[in-house]
Amino acid sequence: MSLVAGLIAIGAGIAVGFGAIGSGIGQGIAAGKAFEAMARQPEVRGTVQTFLIIALAFMETLTIYGLVIAFMLLNKMS
Amino acid sequence: MSLVAGLIAIGAGIAVGFGAIGSGIGQGIAAGKAFEAMARQPEVRGTVQTFLIIALAFMETLTIYGLVIAFMLLNKMS
Amino acid sequence: MSLVAGLIAIGAGIAVGFGAIGSGIGQGIAAGKAFEAMARQPEVRGTVQTFLIIALAFMETLTIYGLVIAFMLLNKMS
Amino acid sequence: MSLVAGLIAIGAGIAVGFGAIGSGIGQGIAAGKAFEAMARQPEVRGTVQTFLIIALAFMETLTIYGLVIAFMLLNKMS
Amino acid sequence: MSLVAGLIAIGAGIAVGFGAIGSGIGQGIAAGKAFEAMARQPEVRGTVQTFLIIALAFMETLTIYGLVIAFMLLNKMS
Amino acid sequence: MSLVAGLIAIGAGIAVGFGAIGSGIGQGIAAGKAFEAMARQPEVRGTVQTFLIIALAFMETLTIYGLVIAFMLLNKMS
Amino acid sequence: MSLVAGLIAIGAGIAVGFGAIGSGIGQGIAAGKAFEAMARQPEVRGTVQTFLIIALAFMETLTIYGLVIAFMLLNKMS
Amino acid sequence: MSLVAGLIAIGAGIAVGFGAIGSGIGQGIAAGKAFEAMARQPEVRGTVQTFLIIALAFMETLTIYGLVIAFMLLNKMS
Amino acid sequence: MSLVAGLIAIGAGIAVGFGAIGSGIGQGIAAGKAFEAMARQPEVRGTVQTFLIIALAFMETLTIYGLVIAFMLLNKMS
Amino acid sequence: MSLVAGLIAIGAGIAVGFGAIGSGIGQGIAAGKAFEAMARQPEVRGTVQTFLIIALAFMETLTIYGLVIAFMLLNKMS
Amino acid sequence: MSLVAGLIAIGAGIAVGFGAIGSGIGQGIAAGKAFEAMARQPEVRGTVQTFLIIALAFMETLTIYGLVIAFMLLNKMS
Amino acid sequence: MSLVAGLIAIGAGIAVGFGAIGSGIGQGIAAGKAFEAMARQPEVRGTVQTFLIIALAFMETLTIYGLVIAFMLLNKMS
Amino acid sequence: MSLVAGLIAIGAGIAVGFGAIGSGIGQGIAAGKAFEAMARQPEVRGTVQTFLIIALAFMETLTIYGLVIAFMLLNKMS
Amino acid sequence: MSLVAGLIAIGAGIAVGFGAIGSGIGQGIAAGKAFEAMARQPEVRGTVQTFLIIALAFMETLTIYGLVIAFMLLNKMS
Repeated sequence: MSLVAGLIAIGAGIAVGFGAIGSGIGQGIAAGKAFEAMARQPEVRGTVQTFLIIALAFMETLTIYGLVIAFMLLNKMS
Repeated sequence: MSLVAGLIAIGAGIAVGFGAIGSGIGQGIAAGKAFEAMARQPEVRGTVQTFLIIALAFMETLTIYGLVIAFMLLNKMS
Repeated sequence: MSLVAGLIAIGAGIAVGFGAIGSGIGQGIAAGKAFEAMARQPEVRGTVQTFLIIALAFMETLTIYGLVIAFMLLNKMS
Repeated sequence: MSLVAGLIAIGAGIAVGFGAIGSGIGQGIAAGKAFEAMARQPEVRGTVQTFLIIALAFMETLTIYGLVIAFMLLNKMS
Repeated sequence: MSLVAGLIAIGAGIAVGFGAIGSGIGQGIAAGKAFEAMARQPEVRGTVQTFLIIALAFMETLTIYGLVIAFMLLNKMS
Repeated sequence: MSLVAGLIAIGAGIAVGFGAIGSGIGQGIAAGKAFEAMARQPEVRGTVQTFLIIALAFMETLTIYGLVIAFMLLNKMS
Repeated sequence: MSLVAGLIAIGAGIAVGFGAIGSGIGQGIAAGKAFEAMARQPEVRGTVQTFLIIALAFMETLTIYGLVIAFMLLNKMS
Repeated sequence: MSLVAGLIAIGAGIAVGFGAIGSGIGQGIAAGKAFEAMARQPEVRGTVQTFLIIALAFMETLTIYGLVIAFMLLNKMS
Repeated sequence: MSLVAGLIAIGAGIAVGFGAIGSGIGQGIAAGKAFEAMARQPEVRGTVQTFLIIALAFMETLTIYGLVIAFMLLNKMS
Repeated sequence: MSLVAGLIAIGAGIAVGFGAIGSGIGQGIAAGKAFEAMARQPEVRGTVQTFLIIALAFMETLTIYGLVIAFMLLNKMS
Repeated sequence: MSLVAGLIAIGAGIAVGFGAIGSGIGQGIAAGKAFEAMARQPEVRGTVQTFLIIALAFMETLTIYGLVIAFMLLNKMS
Repeated sequence: MSLVAGLIAIGAGIAVGFGAIGSGIGQGIAAGKAFEAMARQPEVRGTVQTFLIIALAFMETLTIYGLVIAFMLLNKMS
Repeated sequence: MSLVAGLIAIGAGIAVGFGAIGSGIGQGIAAGKAFEAMARQPEVRGTVQTFLIIALAFMETLTIYGLVIAFMLLNKMS
Repeated sequence: MSLVAGLIAIGAGIAVGFGAIGSGIGQGIAAGKAFEAMARQPEVRGTVQTFLIIALAFMETLTIYGLVIAFMLLNKMS
């Protein structure tokens, strides 16, 4: 295994590690505000639940893009 | 595989990893405010839902641009 | 492929990755405030919708500039 | 064991370490807002509990993606 | 193509990537406040619209300066 | 012991050190908001206590993932 | 073209890229507050418009200084 | 003592130093909010005291993980 | 042209680029607050206008100091 | 004394220097909120005093961990 | 001209560039708050004007110290 | 004096310089809140004074730890 | 002039440049709050003026310490 | 003068430069809050004045520690 594999590993780490920072903070803000909305207006609960899941999924995919790139980089290492 | 592949991998990681930070935080703010708006004014729900999806899609594409560059960089590696 | 391609790849990653941080956060703030405005004053909805799309497009182009530079850098790699 | 193992170790550390920053802050915001919502509107408690667990799980997976990449990188080291 | 092209590429990436961070956040703040102003005082809408476009254009040019430098650097690469 | 052990040590330090930043801030926010909720609505205390422990445990595991990776990296050093 | 051109390119990128961060955020704050002022006190609109343009121009010049330095650095490259 | 010991020392410093940043800020927020809760609702004091100690202990362990890794790295140095 | 010119170019970029960050944000805050003051107390407009220009000029000079240093560095390059 | 001592010194500096950032900010927040609580509810003073000392001690130990590691690293230098 | 001139140029850039960040933000805050004070209490205008100029001058000197060091470094270059 | 002394000096600078950042901000927050508490509830002044001194002393020691390490590192230089 | 002069120049730049960041922001906050205090309670003006000058002087000295070190470093260069 | 003097100079710059950041911001917050307290409760002025000077002195010493280390490092240079 040559030295290039080490640099690819760092690239994979950046792709999946930094990508998760924004998604994590974003999901926390979205979920937190959703709980607040549920508490303030209980009858809107159904819509908020649906869109919370949609928003969490949108943010999750941001990190999954990084995960995909990281996996593809891992395949290049061998 | 030469050393250049390692630097390309780092470039791909930066493209997809850092790009996701802003999108993640932005989507969280947008979704959170949308839930707040739904709770405060339930009858505006339809419009907010439509534009939440549009806004999330706009922000998603920012990271997808990074993903596209990362894929193209991965093709250059082989 | 020489070592220069690796440095170009890092340049492309910076162009498209860092550019997306500001656009993402900005779009999130703009969209979030738009939802708030819609909830507070439903009859202003039409104007806010139009200008939300305009503002999102303005911010989207900031990252597209980075994307253009990244593509042009990718062409220089081969 | 060659020098590449050291670079892979740094990549694994970035993947699991930076990924946890966003998730940790996000889970704290979500849980904090959930407690606030429970205190303001006790009868909404059931829904908030369910969605708090869902949101925490979503954020937990962001770091688990980093963990998966880190494990796969560790396997490449030997 | 010599090694210098790689350093020029990084310079181009910095010029267009970092320049977009401030513009993106600034446009988001300006647009968000504009929506808030429209909702609070609908009859001021005409002026706010005009100046929102002017302000967005001002901020857009900040990134375009970076784009111009990046293009000129790209021409130096060949 | 070769030079690679030093790089692995840095990787282990990043994994356990940076991972703890987010968890620490997150646990502080969650616990702080829980105390606030207890003070505002004493009869909700039971639920908040249970979920505070659950949320703290979730955040604790984020750093434990980093600890696991660090231990595994330490085993690779010998 | 020697290696020095690459370092000059990075200097030009820093000059125009980082300079735009502050200008962008500042213009956003100024414009946003101006819209707020217009909405709160419509009859002050004339003065605010005039001084918004002046303030935006002041901030624009900050980045133009960076642009001037970047152009002069580009001329030194050939 | 070879050069590797120096890199291990830096790894130990990162593990225990950065890990303490989050814990310190988190403990401050938690303790501060606990004092606020005690002042607002004196009869909830018993519960808040108990859970403040629990929360502080949880956050303390985050840095202790880093301490453990740092000690283990120190043992590897000799 | 020797390698030193490249380092001087980076120094010039730092001088004019970073110096503009603070000035830009500061001018934005000052102008924004001035608009707010004009809207709240229209009869104080004359004084605020005069001092806004003075304050903007003070902040502009901060970046001009950087510009002066950058020009002097550019002269040293030839 | 070999070069490794210098790297160990940097490790010791990081351990004790960065660890103090979080503790300092945290102690400031905790003490500040304690004063606020004392002012708002003077009769709760006894409990707040006790727990302020406990919380300050908890945060102090975070930096002491870094101090311990720094001392142990110093012993390794000779 | 030897390589040392390049490093001196970077030192001059840091001295004048970073020093301006704090002064710029500080002047913006001070001027902004002064406008706010003038609007809230017009009869205190005289004192605020005098002390605003004094405060701006104090902050200006901070950057001028950096400018002095930068000039002295420039003299050392020749 | 060998090169190692330079690295030790950097370690000493980090120990005493970064450690002071947190302590300074923390002491400012604590003292500021203490003044606020004194103004709001003058009869609690005695207790706040005592604990302000205690809290300032606690935070001062954080930097003194860094100072101790820095002195010990200085002794190792000769 | 040897290469060491360049490193000393960077040290001087850091001493005077970074030291000014905190002083600048701090002076801005102190002056801003002083104007606010003058506007809210005009009869306290005398005391606030005196202590504003004292506080500005305290903060100015922080940067002057850096200036002293920078001058002493400049003397070592020749 | 050998290369080690340059590294010592950088260490001295870090010690006095970074240490001043926290002290500056902290002094600004403390002084600002003191002015606020004086304005809100003029009869508490005596105590606030005394403790403002004490608090400023505490924070000043943090930077003086860095100054002491920087002086001692300067003595090691010759």
